[in-house]
Order: sequence, then structure tokens, then C-alpha cells
Amino acid sequence: MRLSNRVNAMQESPIRKLVPYAEAAKKSGKKVYHLNIGQPDIETPKAFMESIKDFNDPVIKYSFSQGDPKLINAIIEYYKGYNMHFTENEILITNGGSEALLFAIIAICDPGDEILVPEPFYTNYNGFTGGVSVNIKPITTSAENGFHLPDKKEIEQLITNKTKAILFSNPGNPTGVVYSKEEINMLAEIAKQNDLFIISDEVYREFVYDNLEYTSFGNVEGISDRVILVDSVSKRYSACGARIGSLACKNKDFIKQVLKLCQSRLCVPTLEQIGATALYHVDKAYLDTVNIEYNKRRDIVYETLSSIDGVICEKPTGAFYVVAKLPIEDAEDFVIWLLKDFDLNGETVMFAPAAGFYATKGLGQNEVRIAYVLNEDDLKKAMNILKYGLEKYSRR
Amino acid sequence: MRLSNRVNAMQESPIRKLVPYAEAAKKSGKKVYHLNIGQPDIETPKAFMESIKDFNDPVIKYSFSQGDPKLINAIIEYYKGYNMHFTENEILITNGGSEALLFAIIAICDPGDEILVPEPFYTNYNGFTGGVSVNIKPITTSAENGFHLPDKKEIEQLITNKTKAILFSNPGNPTGVVYSKEEINMLAEIAKQNDLFIISDEVYREFVYDNLEYTSFGNVEGISDRVILVDSVSKRYSACGARIGSLACKNKDFIKQVLKLCQSRLCVPTLEQIGATALYHVDKAYLDTVNIEYNKRRDIVYETLSSIDGVICEKPTGAFYVVAKLPIEDAEDFVIWLLKDFDLNGETVMFAPAAGFYATKGLGQNEVRIAYVLNEDDLKKAMNILKYGLEKYSRR
Repeated sequence: MRLSNRVNAMQESPIRKLVPYAEAAKKSGKKVYHLNIGQPDIETPKAFMESIKDFNDPVIKYSFSQGDPKLINAIIEYYKGYNMHFTENEILITNGGSEALLFAIIAICDPGDEILVPEPFYTNYNGFTGGVSVNIKPITTSAENGFHLPDKKEIEQLITNKTKAILFSNPGNPTGVVYSKEEINMLAEIAKQNDLFIISDEVYREFVYDNLEYTSFGNVEGISDRVILVDSVSKRYSACGARIGSLACKNKDFIKQVLKLCQSRLCVPTLEQIGATALYHVDKAYLDTVNIEYNKRRDIVYETLSSIDGVICEKPTGAFYVVAKLPIEDAEDFVIWLLKDFDLNGETVMFAPAAGFYATKGLGQNEVRIAYVLNEDDLKKAMNILKYGLEKYSRR
Repeated sequence: MRLSNRVNAMQESPIRKLVPYAEAAKKSGKKVYHLNIGQPDIETPKAFMESIKDFNDPVIKYSFSQGDPKLINAIIEYYKGYNMHFTENEILITNGGSEALLFAIIAICDPGDEILVPEPFYTNYNGFTGGVSVNIKPITTSAENGFHLPDKKEIEQLITNKTKAILFSNPGNPTGVVYSKEEINMLAEIAKQNDLFIISDEVYREFVYDNLEYTSFGNVEGISDRVILVDSVSKRYSACGARIGSLACKNKDFIKQVLKLCQSRLCVPTLEQIGATALYHVDKAYLDTVNIEYNKRRDIVYETLSSIDGVICEKPTGAFYVVAKLPIEDAEDFVIWLLKDFDLNGETVMFAPAAGFYATKGLGQNEVRIAYVLNEDDLKKAMNILKYGLEKYSRR
């Protein structure tokens, strides 16, 4: 009674696998600052719960497989604000960005097909591909140049007759990179010349700092039939537990085929779609306030990292993550040590070791992902613990 | 830019594909009784919305990947009522029974592997298997013997070295069959002797009539490491739109591997799990009342079917469906005709043509699935429309 090769080959979540050490630290009386997981502390707009509380149908019925038309229309309006124009038949509602990614991969790839993904990448891309027998071919990027893309030739060398798509998040999780217009246009060229789909995970679209120009793949001309936008309310409206995501695509055949997958799981929860509709109607000022807050947090994290000798880290410009190369050998050992053997006045901090975000073995061993999801005060304390922890760890 | 073979090969939902004809009928002013889809009219227990309205955390956070411990414990208590004993580490919460089935199939099967499924079967099994490149091998059953299983030899002939599991719903969707203790024991023998998993979709466990004995696979001794129970609140508590399902299994490796899949999609919605927990705490009297209601409806449907010359249909004993063989050639043509060209005092009725519930081409052409999900009055009218419709259709 062996289980499948594909499920056996999947790695455990590198974000969640060290949780038992954090639990033990807490049991021993330590306070743990969690910078290991992208769960923001920002309040969800009240409109979410208020709209759900107004629901009073006597039966909690199935919704439409493609999603609630009200939510779809709210998303259409949202995209208009970015000069992207979709119709009702070009958007599908999904169980989080997660299901959007899974369905896109199933619709594009057969078993054994390949997808190019810049590494380090959001680890759950491993789950969505591995579970359906698709292989990730990494485009390696590095802390030294802020995780920007290599040149076109280097990327094209990775393409085989099995390659079907390029997948990435922009702004980037876990790196915080925001790709330049030139990088986006380069990927568009590669996709056109090699007949690839582009799966653009833009769930952090509003999390761009320093007034940097952001180029969405929804704004690139001439390739709209091969662009698939993945979105979600999770980070945008701090509603991770709502699990409402979406796919937007102008390729009619893609939508038609993914709709079959949507039908096979019937629908997305009725109430959460009502709440998500209210979120997309929240005044845009909310997103601006959130952006300012994360910008401040980014500065705190980067300032501390810059003050530590031997840390390699370009200033991140998006999302709420950064991958930093630390002056140590084994980041997983360091994270466990912070939880087990270290504290500063009874407090410690948790990060995600970055090796699990790479597909290439051996990369990221001395890197951590830091999620700046706590308020300024807590974040300052947490980063201070990192600084002192690193000193003490290197003197062991 | 071709999409994948696996998604192209998937059929459209036979339950939903004729919806445009129903929409057109309604636009033309006809009333349509929907017996084509398993959306009950029974009220969802008020505890569902009440518990959700009480939620007042400021942030809608991720839940645990394995599910909310309160919901898991409520399900443990529920199973105890059926003399099934699970621990917290043996249950995973999923996005509906749909995701439970998908994850079980991914964990058990690699691409090209096979699963035995009695046909006609719940059509979405096609989506869960086709999307992950697994093949269904049908065990053909027929209206003439009430869709009971063939003998052991006939089933074993279908097993190859690619066969990994037997999957079925009991009580059966779309047939309404409830397998006898002997049939369950036979499947258990086959699974043991051929080293197969059993995926037992028991979401209609409470919908068994005539005081018939029901044998759950959770009560069969000696095979607990190969039994996977799929459950859901959708039909049990008339909460289809909540999308809360679960997997229960005593095989530790299975749970460990499926947990990786659960982690890759992070979690199931937070609010819906709170509502589902309240549902599992609803007094058992609720389920008894619902059973009595469906029993009455089953009688109405069966009585009408028995009164029509040429209809072949054993009395169904479970779920809220029946597959009936009609004295016509093409059920899809008949269903479309009912919607387009027929009415009885401005009213008509919609069924699901049954061919889409079979994997074997050509089977089920003259059969429909009837879902008795309307109240007695409406159901009587709807079945009367079927009777008159059949007469007029055959005299065309």
C-alpha cells in the first residue's frame, strides 16, 4: 500500500515545518516574534464581516462554479483602476490564489511538462506543480543583485520542448523584488518567441514602495492571450482566512477549460464571496494606508540588516518579505538555535530558512526569509533579537 | 498555445451543461422545476449563521492546514455516534468533499494509475481523476437490478497492476443504491487481496430509508489502514455553499502525505469552519426529521415512476437521487424537449441526462437522474409533468 511517487516527492512546507520548535519555545515561557509566515497583523476591513452578517437566506446554497457575479464585477471594477479591462467571461473565482495557480497549471501542463520559475520562489509552487506531476525549472537569481532576473539568453537556455509557461510572483514572495519594465518586457518577448503562457501572481500588486513604477502583465500589449493573472484578497485586504482568489485571462479557451475544473469542485464558499465583494468595494485609501505602514516596516527591517556585518541584502521594494544572506553556514540550524537556545530578555524570533524556497539543491543554505508582518515596535524588537542572536551564534 | 491533453479530455458537467436551455425556458415565461441538481431546499440549521455572526476577531487569519481543531473534534464526536473512533491526527478538513476526493486520489495515484468505480457514478469523479491524469475503470451496474454490484469475479477481472483503489459513494449518487453488508464485505475482501485503498464517499450516510441496515466502511474490521472516509456538511446539513468536507483515515502515512497537499493550499476558510463546527453540534433529531422528509419525497418519485409504462427503476433506498430508465431513445434530447417545446400549464421540469454519469460509451442514453430536492407539492407537480411529458414526447 505505497502512496504515490508524486506525493512522496513533495517537500514539507519549509515555512511550517519548524513550528514544533516555536511551540516548544512558547511552552518554555519564551515570547516568539513570528516573522516566518506571511500572516499580517493588519485589521481586515470591517466591511467583510458586516456584509456577511447581513446574509439571511435560509439555505446556504451552492454558488456558481465560475463565481458570484457580484464579486466578478467588483474585481472588474478593481482592475479598471489599473487600466486593465476584463469582461465577466474572463474572470473565475477560486479557493484562494492557491487554487487559481493549481487550475492554471493543470490546464496548461500534462504530466512531465515544465514551468520556468525564478528561484527563490513561493514554496507552495512546489505543491501545485508536484501534486499534478509538473516539473519546475528554476531561473536562479541571487541576493547579490536583489534577485533581479538574469539576461534573456540565460533564461532561454532553460527552455525545452516540455516548457509550457513562466510562473512568478511580482512583487516577489519571498524576495520582495519588483521586476522592472524591462524585465517584464523581456519575459513577454520570451513567451511570444517560445509560445509560452505567463502565469503572473500579482497578489502583492499594491505593496510597492519608493514610488517605484510597477508593471503588471495585464498592461503589456500584444500578449494578452497568453497572460494569466492570479489575484487574491488574502494579503491585499489582510483576509488570508477568507481563501478567495481569482484568475483573469483573455484567452477564451483557457477560461473554458478551467471552468471544467471549477465545475468539478462545484463552487467557492458563498459567504466568503459576499465578504470579498465588500472588500473590493473598500475605498482605495485603505490600500494607501496599508502601503505606508508596510513601507515603514520595510525600512526598519532593512536598516537593521544593513547594520549587521556580513549580511547581504539589497533593499527590497515590494511585498512584505525579504531574503537576506546571513554570515552563517546553515540558516535552518540558526533558526532552530534561536528558538531552542537563545533569548533576549525572554524573547526570541522566528524566520523561515530560505533553502526550501530554492529548487536547486544547496542554494539558500545561509539565507532566511523575513516577513515584516508585525507592527513597528514589535518589529524593532524582533530585528534587534536577530542582531544580538547572530553575534552570540557566531561566538558559540 | 495548446492547453493540456488532460483538461481537453475532461467532459463538461452533464448536470450543468443544459442550464442555458433552462434559462431560456424561464425567459420565455415557463416555471422550471429543477430536479437536475442536488441542491436541497431544506433550511440550513440556524446555528451555522449564528456561530459565524459571533465571530469578532479583527483579522481574518489563516486557519491550520489540517483544519480547525474544534471542527475536527466535533467530527470525532459525530463519528462516535456511529461507533467509529478517530483521533485528532486521523482527520483533515477540506474544501468540500470535492477536495477530499482530489487529495486522496493524488496521494494514492501517479499519472496513468487506475481506480475502480461502479458506474453510473457521481460525474465529478471524472474531474478529480482526469485533472490529475488518473483513469477510472468502471464497474458497470444497471437499473434492472437497482444498481447493485456484480459478483466478485467480475470486479476482479478489472484489476491490473495499475489499479490503486476502489472509489464509490454509498448511499449512491446518482443511483440511490445502498450497498448491502455482503457487498461491503466483498469490496473489503477484494481490497485486501489486491492491496487496494478504498475511498468511501459517505456524504449521504444519514439518507437511508425503510429502516435498512447501513454498513459504513468505517465499521469494517481488519482493513482500517486502507479505508479513507470522505464526508461533507453539504447534504447532511443542507449547507452546500459552505464547502466544508473532511477525510478520515487510520493510515498514518496517508494522513502525513495528504497534509503536505493541505499545506500547499494553506487552509480552508476560517468562518465556514466555525459554522460547520456548529452544524456538527446540532441535535441529531434534525437529521431524523430530514430523513423522514426525504423518505416521503422518495415515495412520491417512485410512485410516479412505477405508474409509467416502460420505466425501469428499482425502488431507491438512499441519498436523494434515482436513475430511471425511460421508454425513450435519447434522454438528453428528451430533457431539452421538456425545456424547449413542452409545458403543462406554463410549467416544466428539468432532469440530468444519465449518460454523463457512465464511463462506458453508449450506456445510460435513455436514463435520467432525478434529484428529489423539492418539497412534496412541487415534487408531485414536477413528476406529473414528467408523466405527461413522456406521453406527449412519445406521440410526437
